[in-house]
Amino acid sequence: MISVVILGSGNVATHLIDAFLKIDEIELRQVYTRNIKDLESFKNNIPTTNSIEFLKQADVTIISVSDDAISELSSKIKNSLVVHTSGSVDMSELKNSTNKGVFYPLQSFSKDKKINFKNIPICLEAEHNKDLNLLKRLALLLQGNIYHLDSNQRKRIHIAAVFVNNFTNHMYAIAHNICKKHDVSFDILHPLIMETSKKIKNLSPQEAQTGPAKRNDVETIKNHLNLLNQQQQELYLKITKSIQEYGNKL
Amino acid sequence: MISVVILGSGNVATHLIDAFLKIDEIELRQVYTRNIKDLESFKNNIPTTNSIEFLKQADVTIISVSDDAISELSSKIKNSLVVHTSGSVDMSELKNSTNKGVFYPLQSFSKDKKINFKNIPICLEAEHNKDLNLLKRLALLLQGNIYHLDSNQRKRIHIAAVFVNNFTNHMYAIAHNICKKHDVSFDILHPLIMETSKKIKNLSPQEAQTGPAKRNDVETIKNHLNLLNQQQQELYLKITKSIQEYGNKL
Repeated sequence: MISVVILGSGNVATHLIDAFLKIDEIELRQVYTRNIKDLESFKNNIPTTNSIEFLKQADVTIISVSDDAISELSSKIKNSLVVHTSGSVDMSELKNSTNKGVFYPLQSFSKDKKINFKNIPICLEAEHNKDLNLLKRLALLLQGNIYHLDSNQRKRIHIAAVFVNNFTNHMYAIAHNICKKHDVSFDILHPLIMETSKKIKNLSPQEAQTGPAKRNDVETIKNHLNLLNQQQQELYLKITKSIQEYGNKL
Repeated sequence: MISVVILGSGNVATHLIDAFLKIDEIELRQVYTRNIKDLESFKNNIPTTNSIEFLKQADVTIISVSDDAISELSSKIKNSLVVHTSGSVDMSELKNSTNKGVFYPLQSFSKDKKINFKNIPICLEAEHNKDLNLLKRLALLLQGNIYHLDSNQRKRIHIAAVFVNNFTNHMYAIAHNICKKHDVSFDILHPLIMETSKKIKNLSPQEAQTGPAKRNDVETIKNHLNLLNQQQQELYLKITKSIQEYGNKL
């Protein structure tokens, strides 16, 4: 049995709470949030508090709040092992005087979409081996895939995640915009989107790269630019240039 | 029974040949290519020619060559219905004096990866209704999803496809590069990549957008930029700006 306290009520916190409540070997002792109202859906299942002085002890205390609030909040906690769930915050920014660690689930969390933690990469870091082992046990109970990364690696992976998630989604947004403007259902692009994301399980993205930028098909690139608005043109040109620079490096 | 002749031996041609050969209701009469060697894997199953004068008649004659070769090649063909398979070439660029059309399968084709045409969008265009119906029958035999688009719509969808396929794949390539540089397996990003691509089946990309750009989290953006090389920085800044401009328009 692992006892856990969670601080926070955002997307990651909510999904962790939801997952922990379903696992018999995890005892979710308490949830802290400044805004008790955020936790209404849980209030029958777990004790909540909005006062840091009343924080219960636990094997693992998980801070899952916005990046810039981690440091100050951690300084007020006296529990034995305090971890945060952020991809971009250094472990050393935890200011508790007890043991520190990181428990970063690498996935895109939306409030309205259920997350199954099975096979989700969980990036762990800790000062001490015994704490790392405890975090591994916790991650295994969620059936996550464990990665042991230091703070530098984790920050880089977080940036890589911005590229494959936020930036990729923006490519979808522009395509959606083009479809809408020309009265074509965005559904027409779903099979291509799925194929693109599946392909890189077997090929490296460099091998999978195709298209006018890769071929340096100047005529098609010119034709495309003529049909885009200025914002889209700038983006198209910058990404095309970047594809060609990457290609030249290989 | 629909009789078909294909001109070309590139990715799209090869996958169409492969698919047509498996369908009893389609008679693939002949494949034309300048380079007979390209068709070695098919030569036992279909007659091939590298001489346009010996082209056989067929219900549908499919030109599947590079965009800039379509016009000239089509001018030499006297078959009843000539279509091309390009996303970005106007139907009017076909220079045969007989009937014209377009049969554009919207998918990413790689030579080494099998394609199942089932549910792949096939964008059709024709001058005459009876030709459109014939192309529909052909697309249905492939079990494709039929879209009736005019040349203007098709060109726009082709650009949208560049964004969700070529440009998205480049986001993967940069992430791959970051992972490699910091000794982390690219596998760590696969679940996030799959989640990102699946999410927009239920949410619009605008609704699915998250991350530091969307939140205008200046501190995180600054930290990310500090950890990227110049090429990556330029791209990061441009896409971040574009996400914020899009956000403001909604």
